[in-house]
Amino acid sequence: MKKIVLVAFDQFTDIDLFLMWDILGRNTEDWHVRILGSSAIVRSAHGLPVSVHGPLSEANSADAVLFVSGKEGIPAALAAPDFLPSFELDSRRQRIGSICAGAFILERLGLLSDQATTHPDARSSLQALGLEPVDQPLVCQGNVATAGGCLSALYLVGWLVESWFDVGKRRATLLPVLPAGQQELYDALIGLSIRQGALYDRPSQQETRHGMSSNW
Amino acid sequence: MKKIVLVAFDQFTDIDLFLMWDILGRNTEDWHVRILGSSAIVRSAHGLPVSVHGPLSEANSADAVLFVSGKEGIPAALAAPDFLPSFELDSRRQRIGSICAGAFILERLGLLSDQATTHPDARSSLQALGLEPVDQPLVCQGNVATAGGCLSALYLVGWLVESWFDVGKRRATLLPVLPAGQQELYDALIGLSIRQGALYDRPSQQETRHGMSSNW
Repeated sequence: MKKIVLVAFDQFTDIDLFLMWDILGRNTEDWHVRILGSSAIVRSAHGLPVSVHGPLSEANSADAVLFVSGKEGIPAALAAPDFLPSFELDSRRQRIGSICAGAFILERLGLLSDQATTHPDARSSLQALGLEPVDQPLVCQGNVATAGGCLSALYLVGWLVESWFDVGKRRATLLPVLPAGQQELYDALIGLSIRQGALYDRPSQQETRHGMSSNW
Repeated sequence: MKKIVLVAFDQFTDIDLFLMWDILGRNTEDWHVRILGSSAIVRSAHGLPVSVHGPLSEANSADAVLFVSGKEGIPAALAAPDFLPSFELDSRRQRIGSICAGAFILERLGLLSDQATTHPDARSSLQALGLEPVDQPLVCQGNVATAGGCLSALYLVGWLVESWFDVGKRRATLLPVLPAGQQELYDALIGLSIRQGALYDRPSQQETRHGMSSNW
């Protein structure tokens, strides 16, 4: 049973948290999902209070850690003295992902290198940090993935499930939320976006994952 | 300033409420959005408690009333003695919409005739009520629209905004949540789905809305 945590904070973008929460929460056999925060209640950008399930430090023992976004929430979280120091993540044993401005947390935690994606409005800020912003919804590098544009949470969740299990489990996970009459179209788009995300995978990590010699 | 209400109840499908809540909540100039319920707090299907902003009866004075879904929540709401009697909706002066099993509320309120859509898993139940379930994400008949599959909330919101304002406002409303690098693709899909939804519009209502003589 894998443990997935969603990291929230005050002024988080509502849909970022709730879309992943809903999709992942429908499967109670392969994983469980918990919402973490630095206070007992976090308030969304649109004013909804959410009771968190545990402290941020729980992320360190999770199998997957997904960071949501927040136009005002992210700068505030990054500036809070207790936020970043709570995390001791390890991308060798954990899958780590972000939506939109969540990428700025990954950057501060030293988890990004070279390319990444974020919300189109935040692309220049990513560039200012020395990263190459890619205009696509998902960028995967080993066990770390960044997603951009709220609905790309679909692709982030799809990447997580497919990389842990297989395409079949990914399809079964996302199918229930796809629009009626457009399920094949969305399934193709999700598959394409995940493949596209892997284009930026670092060769060294690809080799490791495929068990290939580093002499190749 | 238009008033949009989202009708929730215990065991509501998380994403149905939160997707519309987030997308619509980003605009604070043209409308305001409130969540209504029959108790002060409603609990989502995945266990999140949400404080509602007002009683169900507020729906009767709203400009738009959108019903969310819930596999267990809908049957329970329909069976609750105080739920359906709270509503005195009028599709001549109000836009009314549903996601997935929310269509069963519209049916009980006498707002559906002929075709409608719902979640693919609930299609046969719709048929059993004498309606023709259509395998597409949106079916619009005059001021009443049904949507099927959680993410088709995109199309329901798009229909609402475009029918009130114009294509430009619809685009501006949905753009912030579209996946990076796929905004044009989604914009085309949203436009297509709204046009497709209108294919089932009843001629009598089309004539009224276009100011055409009923003799045509």
